[in-house]
Amino acid sequence: MTNRLWIYDTTLRDGAQCEGLCLSLEDKLRIARQLDTLGIPFIEGGWPGANPKDVQFFWRLKEQPLTQAEVVAFCSTRRPGTTAANDEMLQAILSAGTRWVTLFGKSWDLHVIESLKTTLEENLAMIRDTIEYLRSQGRRVIYDAEHWFDGYKHNRDYAIKTLEVAADAGAEWLVLCDTNGGTLPHEISQVVREVLEALGTNREKSLQLGVHTHNDSGVAVANALAAVREGVTMVQGTINGYGERCGNANLCSLIPNFQLKLGYDCIQDEQLVRLTQVSRSVSEIVNLAPDDRAPFVGLSAFAHKGGIHVSAVEKNPLTYEHLEPEKIGNCRRIVISDQAGLSNVLAKARTFGIELDRKNPACRQILEKLKDLESQGYQFEGAEASFELLMREALEQRPPWFEIKGFQVHCDKVGEDCMALATVKLSVNGTNILEAAEGNGPVSALDAALRKALVNFYPAIAHFYLTDYKVRILDGGAGTSAKTRVLAEFSNGQDRWTTVGVSGNILDASCQAVVEGLEYGLVLENQEAIALVCRVH
Amino acid sequence: MTNRLWIYDTTLRDGAQCEGLCLSLEDKLRIARQLDTLGIPFIEGGWPGANPKDVQFFWRLKEQPLTQAEVVAFCSTRRPGTTAANDEMLQAILSAGTRWVTLFGKSWDLHVIESLKTTLEENLAMIRDTIEYLRSQGRRVIYDAEHWFDGYKHNRDYAIKTLEVAADAGAEWLVLCDTNGGTLPHEISQVVREVLEALGTNREKSLQLGVHTHNDSGVAVANALAAVREGVTMVQGTINGYGERCGNANLCSLIPNFQLKLGYDCIQDEQLVRLTQVSRSVSEIVNLAPDDRAPFVGLSAFAHKGGIHVSAVEKNPLTYEHLEPEKIGNCRRIVISDQAGLSNVLAKARTFGIELDRKNPACRQILEKLKDLESQGYQFEGAEASFELLMREALEQRPPWFEIKGFQVHCDKVGEDCMALATVKLSVNGTNILEAAEGNGPVSALDAALRKALVNFYPAIAHFYLTDYKVRILDGGAGTSAKTRVLAEFSNGQDRWTTVGVSGNILDASCQAVVEGLEYGLVLENQEAIALVCRVH
Repeated sequence: MTNRLWIYDTTLRDGAQCEGLCLSLEDKLRIARQLDTLGIPFIEGGWPGANPKDVQFFWRLKEQPLTQAEVVAFCSTRRPGTTAANDEMLQAILSAGTRWVTLFGKSWDLHVIESLKTTLEENLAMIRDTIEYLRSQGRRVIYDAEHWFDGYKHNRDYAIKTLEVAADAGAEWLVLCDTNGGTLPHEISQVVREVLEALGTNREKSLQLGVHTHNDSGVAVANALAAVREGVTMVQGTINGYGERCGNANLCSLIPNFQLKLGYDCIQDEQLVRLTQVSRSVSEIVNLAPDDRAPFVGLSAFAHKGGIHVSAVEKNPLTYEHLEPEKIGNCRRIVISDQAGLSNVLAKARTFGIELDRKNPACRQILEKLKDLESQGYQFEGAEASFELLMREALEQRPPWFEIKGFQVHCDKVGEDCMALATVKLSVNGTNILEAAEGNGPVSALDAALRKALVNFYPAIAHFYLTDYKVRILDGGAGTSAKTRVLAEFSNGQDRWTTVGVSGNILDASCQAVVEGLEYGLVLENQEAIALVCRVH
Repeated sequence: MTNRLWIYDTTLRDGAQCEGLCLSLEDKLRIARQLDTLGIPFIEGGWPGANPKDVQFFWRLKEQPLTQAEVVAFCSTRRPGTTAANDEMLQAILSAGTRWVTLFGKSWDLHVIESLKTTLEENLAMIRDTIEYLRSQGRRVIYDAEHWFDGYKHNRDYAIKTLEVAADAGAEWLVLCDTNGGTLPHEISQVVREVLEALGTNREKSLQLGVHTHNDSGVAVANALAAVREGVTMVQGTINGYGERCGNANLCSLIPNFQLKLGYDCIQDEQLVRLTQVSRSVSEIVNLAPDDRAPFVGLSAFAHKGGIHVSAVEKNPLTYEHLEPEKIGNCRRIVISDQAGLSNVLAKARTFGIELDRKNPACRQILEKLKDLESQGYQFEGAEASFELLMREALEQRPPWFEIKGFQVHCDKVGEDCMALATVKLSVNGTNILEAAEGNGPVSALDAALRKALVNFYPAIAHFYLTDYKVRILDGGAGTSAKTRVLAEFSNGQDRWTTVGVSGNILDASCQAVVEGLEYGLVLENQEAIALVCRVH
């Protein structure tokens, strides 16, 4: 493989610095296994000297190893004024038992003096000793040159010297880190070129360069691309770009760019097809909402809105898509909005797995219903589940799971105490049910009452939960009397779906959205049975 | 100004293609005014021929013009086989009455043949006629060459020909668009260089190039940087990178990169300080959660976690920050440090126009209250009126207009009929009042009951009305039991102000926001009297 590029994932270490992200041991193991199936060759597992959770992580992976990835332990150079063999932290690294260790050291004279409070000479000795010691213990070493680009700008000779020392001591990769994320692509290109010239002359071929970029200037991905085009062969980044401040370079953008656009070999094509799923699984594991606008893997990455786009993209996807979404396991989505024409409706039906013929009178009926509801303030662009229910109704494929007859909600606030009580009246297969529940707010009380009423008939409802809830008033001038639109997002742990409700009464709108959310969950649970009914029908 | 770079905002047109983003007329006007205060020279307002809302938008701006920005109307070339003067769409453009029009046309032969279904020659005629007609009607023209980079790759000569025709017909800017977002920075550099060579020889100097990039490959910002480094002088993008699919180039990343790192003149330094606030206000207006990890303007962009970073950054910010956050109106956040919190309060007070002395003991009191409230989910970025009330309270400048003791709300839905009844209990100057009112929803009933109770004491309240109302849940995983944050915007016909309420109960949160909205309106009505009290105090 002449065009081999080595992907190095640091989601479990640098990614975990992301604000709001907190990983348990089990989370880390689950993410590591996801990365392994994706074919990532290097996975940085953590800093076993600094953190008991990371010690356990490496133990657990020794018991149940990954199939192909190298799990790497991460640590700093030894402390000033000691020897490497006497540094406890390095003992913890060795007992992690990995083949590879990534060691980070200082390249920037300012940091040596102000942060480490030592001399420039001692810093070089710390780099040399630590690498030599790790090599003597049979470890292979990746050297992360922290603050490389800033250090190089401030004191070029010293920065180069740190790399030379690391290489002479036996590091196999020298990774240039833009730790503060302030460097722009043209600077990266120039510095990498100069480094290769400075080191290149009397080095054996086994020494290679890597790059580690951050997104503080919004160009982490472009910086990694620029470095690779100059000859760097290892790229460090994280899934979904998680990381401190603005995050690290996003591997979910880098891998397809390298592999599909620049012709590098990073992972197998069959593994690349898993990329979208890995991105979304990791966001579930870390419990951060996925970024719908993420390049390549986002929900909206291949979404088409306007009528012209839709008909053009169906004739020739190349016209409005930069590559085929299937290659990274994503898919094209036709978005429904008030500009929708008949071709949008037909395209949408196909994505729902509903066969619809342009000549079917139901088509026009759906389109008219859609336009009527949108003029009332409904918006189906973000509420595909409600749109599918609407289609199914026109096609007589919407099973009558239950019917809402009415509800009452009562809220009471006295001083600081607040309570909410809801009563719902509904019928299931002709049986009338009246059920009440409390909640900390009126919507949770309504939701609870609906579930209590329905769970005996449809036990699956117990596994549906609301994951997002948004409200917007539609006609600002009308103030609190305005119509409200509620968007509710649900999950059953596997799929996500969104519904919409509109009313002058916020609780009525919420009730509509929650009811359709439960109903659509039932459609998903019973997909095969419904398909059968349709065929008979 | 030798290094002038022209920023062109298309949030209101291309940005509005963003999935889940739906702008009302008032939203568009508010965003336009935000962009105007930021000093953006060109604001694309919409396509008046395609959309009645956009027609109104231009009318409203004629009544109340912006202070300095050029508002630009957007449209396509005339239809095949007609004349420009007979094209209705172009008449709508002219009646928008803007000085500048942005016209987009096809550069890619594939699109001409497959989408427009016309000949390559007729497409050139469409570009020429439309521009000449607009020029004859006194308009200045920006020409957006759609799918430029893909077109150039497929048929270089034809693509160049379309630009030559546009320039000859009188377009002053030729904007190279990467409509599908598939181009990488090194390709952008090369193509821009070649275009300048191809056009450069026998052109007058007044012709300039622009660039319009999309983020499908995760490099929209880097692509714009690359184009500008080759000589492009106009950059199109959107606030927060909103836009179709993966979005447009993010102006909140581009402007600081150009201005602070590359030395271009885009906006005034005093305007640049507003960037963070504009980013967050726009995200509130469009009701999309702000991206905390956004470069430069994100909440986490200058956040420092724990030990080494904190002490290093306090000694010398350069060690862990690529630039000074104050330059873009953001601030360093050191999560564990009280001192940093105090600067936050002072910084926030300054952005809201309140001068506060660090030595005033009220500062610490405000800080503690603020931290407590923010940990509960309050957010004051979009709710300046609530923040001012909080400050006034600590400074003993918040008159006790009234006190809420409690409320009850009852909602009833039977079949299609819905009713809401609210009762409020409050006291004014020691007098207890119990008042009830109906509304078409629970919030309007609450609002009506509050007004009925207060209007006899404070007749001005009759003139305050709610102009916008938004709700977001704060902790997605908790579903309908999650905390809700309500933002309410009020007007008295002259001023507008926004308040915030947070509670596990949506009606409680709404009541808080409405109560503070009425209270702040009274502060505005009585400003002189209050100022007097303060001076005496």
